Amino acid sequence: MNKHAIDLELKKALTKDRYEHTMNVVKITESLALRYHADVDKASLAALLHDCAKNFSCEELLAYAKANNVKIDPVTRLEPQLLHGPVGAVVAEKTYGVTDKKVLNAIHYHTTGREHMSKLEKIIYLADFIEPSRTYPGVDQLRSIAFEDLDKAMIMALTNTIRYVSSINSLIHKRTITARNDLIIKELKKNIIESE
Amino acid sequence: MNKHAIDLELKKALTKDRYEHTMNVVKITESLALRYHADVDKASLAALLHDCAKNFSCEELLAYAKANNVKIDPVTRLEPQLLHGPVGAVVAEKTYGVTDKKVLNAIHYHTTGREHMSKLEKIIYLADFIEPSRTYPGVDQLRSIAFEDLDKAMIMALTNTIRYVSSINSLIHKRTITARNDLIIKELKKNIIESE
Repeated sequence: MNKHAIDLELKKALTKDRYEHTMNVVKITESLALRYHADVDKASLAALLHDCAKNFSCEELLAYAKANNVKIDPVTRLEPQLLHGPVGAVVAEKTYGVTDKKVLNAIHYHTTGREHMSKLEKIIYLADFIEPSRTYPGVDQLRSIAFEDLDKAMIMALTNTIRYVSSINSLIHKRTITARNDLIIKELKKNIIESE
Repeated sequence: MNKHAIDLELKKALTKDRYEHTMNVVKITESLALRYHADVDKASLAALLHDCAKNFSCEELLAYAKANNVKIDPVTRLEPQLLHGPVGAVVAEKTYGVTDKKVLNAIHYHTTGREHMSKLEKIIYLADFIEPSRTYPGVDQLRSIAFEDLDKAMIMALTNTIRYVSSINSLIHKRTITARNDLIIKELKKNIIESE
């Protein structure tokens, strides 16, 4: 399916607000991809489809995950909305015909992050976090930093997520912690090498 | 070694402040153990020794861990002070002659927590967190809740740790997240069963 056809399908599959959010994420993603010399076409395709399973109910997410061997862990079992990334990656493949593993991974991990994130995965994660309709405290600062230093912005975004999720007494996915630790460790190593 | 002999040794091994903190933790631990019908003797021994490796330097912690097959993961490699629990458990066994696995585990996991914590492990974790010299915001509330509901207090303490550690841009240990998720999941399940 080409991008135009995917776009038409998504307009039907998503609510108006979700579709508008998706278009916002596509725009920011394309700018970030240009800024960081990533493949703009791939990044834009991942952005277009990142929330393709967002309008699934919790029951639908769990059933789709089970039927398609998407791992359900103790956290996603209780908070199935966290599955919209992993399930979305399968939907992108099966329904929208995406075959590129890098694009599918960017969709898969756009909510939790993971250890050793690719540039494309970071771009989608951040674009989702800073698109114009987001209004949480500190979003303006994060918007600037996202275009200055991708990893620094990722650490800030992941920290923000952890602090928010813990403040509302919700479960924190282990992948969000390993994503953040991994990036902080890389920054520390970079600083050590630079100071040597 | 009996408790009195351990006490004399610790007085020599620890700084004055650390020894005073240890005595505070012992007192609170004994109260919590009484409140929650835990073995007061075991709890008190774990409290006495919980920081027995706290005055090791980072180099000493890493060397001792390596020599005694204590796992060093990417997080503890960069923040070796997190090893004072796991290393402390080995010191408690080798130097102070403790053989009780439950006591050793309470020492091992008193800083990070872990999934499926025992009652004794929770008591030591909390006693360390709320002893009288602690002064962080919210400590008074936590002191009350610790004597009302052990698991609720644990969730609050772990959340507090996660929020603090993320605010200072430090690494969060995976075990702290799995400890918190595990307790929240158990609380949710309990609430579901009670409402049925």
